[in-house]
Amino acid sequence: MGKNLTSRSEDYSKWYNELVVKADLAENSAVRGCMVIKPYGYAIWEKMQAELDRMFKETGHQNAYFPLFVPKSLFEAEEKNAEGFAKECAVVTHYRLQNDPDNPGKLRVDPEAKLEEELVVRPTSEAIIWNTYKGWIQSYRDLPLLINQWANVVRWEMRTRLFLRTAEFLWQEGHTAHATRDEAIAEAEQMNDVYAEFAQNFMAIPVVKGLKTESERFAGADETYCIEALMQDGKALQAGTSHFLGQNFAKAFDVKFTSNEGKQEYVWATSWGVSTRLMGALIMTHSDDKGLVLPPNLAPNQVVIVPIFKTEEQFDEITNVVNGLIKSLRSKGVTVKYDKRDTLRPGAKFAQHELQGVPLRIAIGARDLENGTVELARRDTLSKETTAIAGIEDKVVGLLEEIQSSLYNRALEYKDTHTTKVDTFEEFKDVLETKGGFISAHWDGTIETEDKIKEITKATIRCVPLDADNEEGICVFSGNKSSKRVLFAKAY
Amino acid sequence: MGKNLTSRSEDYSKWYNELVVKADLAENSAVRGCMVIKPYGYAIWEKMQAELDRMFKETGHQNAYFPLFVPKSLFEAEEKNAEGFAKECAVVTHYRLQNDPDNPGKLRVDPEAKLEEELVVRPTSEAIIWNTYKGWIQSYRDLPLLINQWANVVRWEMRTRLFLRTAEFLWQEGHTAHATRDEAIAEAEQMNDVYAEFAQNFMAIPVVKGLKTESERFAGADETYCIEALMQDGKALQAGTSHFLGQNFAKAFDVKFTSNEGKQEYVWATSWGVSTRLMGALIMTHSDDKGLVLPPNLAPNQVVIVPIFKTEEQFDEITNVVNGLIKSLRSKGVTVKYDKRDTLRPGAKFAQHELQGVPLRIAIGARDLENGTVELARRDTLSKETTAIAGIEDKVVGLLEEIQSSLYNRALEYKDTHTTKVDTFEEFKDVLETKGGFISAHWDGTIETEDKIKEITKATIRCVPLDADNEEGICVFSGNKSSKRVLFAKAY
Repeated sequence: MGKNLTSRSEDYSKWYNELVVKADLAENSAVRGCMVIKPYGYAIWEKMQAELDRMFKETGHQNAYFPLFVPKSLFEAEEKNAEGFAKECAVVTHYRLQNDPDNPGKLRVDPEAKLEEELVVRPTSEAIIWNTYKGWIQSYRDLPLLINQWANVVRWEMRTRLFLRTAEFLWQEGHTAHATRDEAIAEAEQMNDVYAEFAQNFMAIPVVKGLKTESERFAGADETYCIEALMQDGKALQAGTSHFLGQNFAKAFDVKFTSNEGKQEYVWATSWGVSTRLMGALIMTHSDDKGLVLPPNLAPNQVVIVPIFKTEEQFDEITNVVNGLIKSLRSKGVTVKYDKRDTLRPGAKFAQHELQGVPLRIAIGARDLENGTVELARRDTLSKETTAIAGIEDKVVGLLEEIQSSLYNRALEYKDTHTTKVDTFEEFKDVLETKGGFISAHWDGTIETEDKIKEITKATIRCVPLDADNEEGICVFSGNKSSKRVLFAKAY
Repeated sequence: MGKNLTSRSEDYSKWYNELVVKADLAENSAVRGCMVIKPYGYAIWEKMQAELDRMFKETGHQNAYFPLFVPKSLFEAEEKNAEGFAKECAVVTHYRLQNDPDNPGKLRVDPEAKLEEELVVRPTSEAIIWNTYKGWIQSYRDLPLLINQWANVVRWEMRTRLFLRTAEFLWQEGHTAHATRDEAIAEAEQMNDVYAEFAQNFMAIPVVKGLKTESERFAGADETYCIEALMQDGKALQAGTSHFLGQNFAKAFDVKFTSNEGKQEYVWATSWGVSTRLMGALIMTHSDDKGLVLPPNLAPNQVVIVPIFKTEEQFDEITNVVNGLIKSLRSKGVTVKYDKRDTLRPGAKFAQHELQGVPLRIAIGARDLENGTVELARRDTLSKETTAIAGIEDKVVGLLEEIQSSLYNRALEYKDTHTTKVDTFEEFKDVLETKGGFISAHWDGTIETEDKIKEITKATIRCVPLDADNEEGICVFSGNKSSKRVLFAKAY
């Protein structure tokens, strides 16, 4: 199976598409632009969800659920937000099917069952949620309101790619309400930090924390924080965003509270989200020509054990040893799968587990039993060794940690060596074309320059890094003054 | 707060609606028939999800995710299923909004952006899933396929009630594929058993396991297993269903496999689901005029601790003791909340926690500190006692178990005393009117009789209990022969 995968150097995009399907992560469905997330892919997403959910709860958030549909009138209440999404919405106009008189045996939309007001399938939930918050918030005692939702959303994208851009995708969206501007900003920053920490500690992906420029900002936000990651092909991927919404939604939906001092004030807001797009980031950060490479902290199975036998008797003996091993590995918190299928040869199993990115593989045969050894193979380095069964549990635990940090370090090194400071536009274009990655350059702060650079090079400003030093300089394009470098890149 | 609740004897339906809103479980939204599940209600749903998900995985199922939309042509492929749902579907016909020339500043559906084929918002996912399974199943080696999905579904109900019947609701839907008829039937039965076990052990709700009659069966199923529960007002509630789908969907979507013997055969199928409707069952089984009563196994907070103090100093001393108590309770697996809000008096807190059904309340004041005691109150019996702090952890653990089983036993007794055998139609009508509950009666097995009884009494056949004895008898309505008693009731 693995050998059928197109290599990354041959065609990165094709490699990605093939990997997603062959590793059983997802596939296209009968519905334009909508994907099916297959069990193995979904198991990885569930691990992401579990960790993020834990982190959200640890920072004081609760989950809730709001309607899938947004009445058109609510949707248009926050003008900028509506403008930003109107072009890419699925709209429910009718609520019934009926037998089609022109096509016996077929159904048609019942024209009688037209909705008085069309319903937009949520592309994001600010409108419906802020319309609800109006009833929940009266006093400063009701604040802060710290809520998250796990949900599906729909954006009618014309060009879709599995995980990276799909018409329907799964995500979480946090929506919080605060009494003060400072508190809301602190919340937006905190959640961007949570995303960065998750990316680094679980996905093994180093990210740049930054602010979006005005033209890249979420429609309806005063400020958009983001985490940006760098993929193996030198393109950037926005992995999460956290918005400081100011009082925009509070004003659009008239959400006021009585302050501690008895005054009526508009509420301050944030929203923040990550989606199944993270699966794309995970794949494109670590995987190789053999298939998926998973960081142990997100692998559904951290270890797979493959028995190698000729006779039933050998199988029973091996299984006996394996059962003990599984038990002791599980007691150390390791997730293990025993692949005892009799429909596949060991070689085919090896290829499948490589393709699916299982971090460690243990193979055990009859001779191993005699010698008290197993073959232990690392997915990330594709290295193998023969090692004693005695004490292997600690070795496995240690290796899983090593793999986790090694993947991170490898990705960090890639990111660092692919972040290039440039001071001229020639250099800018040259680096972009030959090397890709993040380009750190001075920018004059105008939308015109940003647009022109995009037009000429297809690179966009990914973010103004939060840790950027103040540095006097000259815009790489216009020659005008600049006080900070920003990060440009071509992006997914 | 609690005192504002309408009593059950006054108006059960009003009591229910008020309780759901006042206990912060859910509320109606701006979208017709769609609810907002509030954080407290969602926390209970999350506990249900976690337990069910664990039980599904223990029985070998994996989660996956399929599209929200079903193309109309797929939807109508399985005729019976389509007929069953066509009348109550939301339909997406367009994919874009645009500025409305007739209403400046407003949006309208862009007539140019009409979909070639309308998309049905899934009312259930058999069609889209079986269309996908066609690509996943070739050989007996691919079977059984045991998949579950957690999702939102939409059924355009005209009369809705929070949790019980909403246009959008959350549920899980299992969809499995098998090589043989027997295996599929065993799966459908197993999952119905899982639901019954969950209802009994976690929700503290005794259920009757049974089979639906043909007219109450899921459209597209050969057999529908169900669990039926009895609410406090004598009405039944279908709490979960598990369908043996025969080869109906396999034939509709042409899903065949090569058997062990090399023959091409159609696949056998099941589907099974429970939804946020379970929240309604939970409320209407245990709650009282003071509000919600939660079984400890599903309570987001099993214990709440309320400090009673006059001075800051007293608060600090109490908090000091409480912190130790919380730690030791948590170490025993008890979920505890310390309600130290300074915006509410203890009495108001008590009322709120009663309304929200927290199983145990611990109140601790200055005099308690001196005496080494606390006041411990049970939500289910509304009884209080003063008890020593020393050793209270074990007492709490014991009480939580006692409450869990006591709620179950109380509900079981209600169900048993409200299941009445009748042998004449006069008696049938009389019991239905005066006492309600399940009526165990002989039925001649015809749809005509079933329909007429429904027409006259509004009672339907809830199920043919799986454990019903063979018993010769005479149909309570037609006088024709019958070999089994079935359960009738008015139902939600």
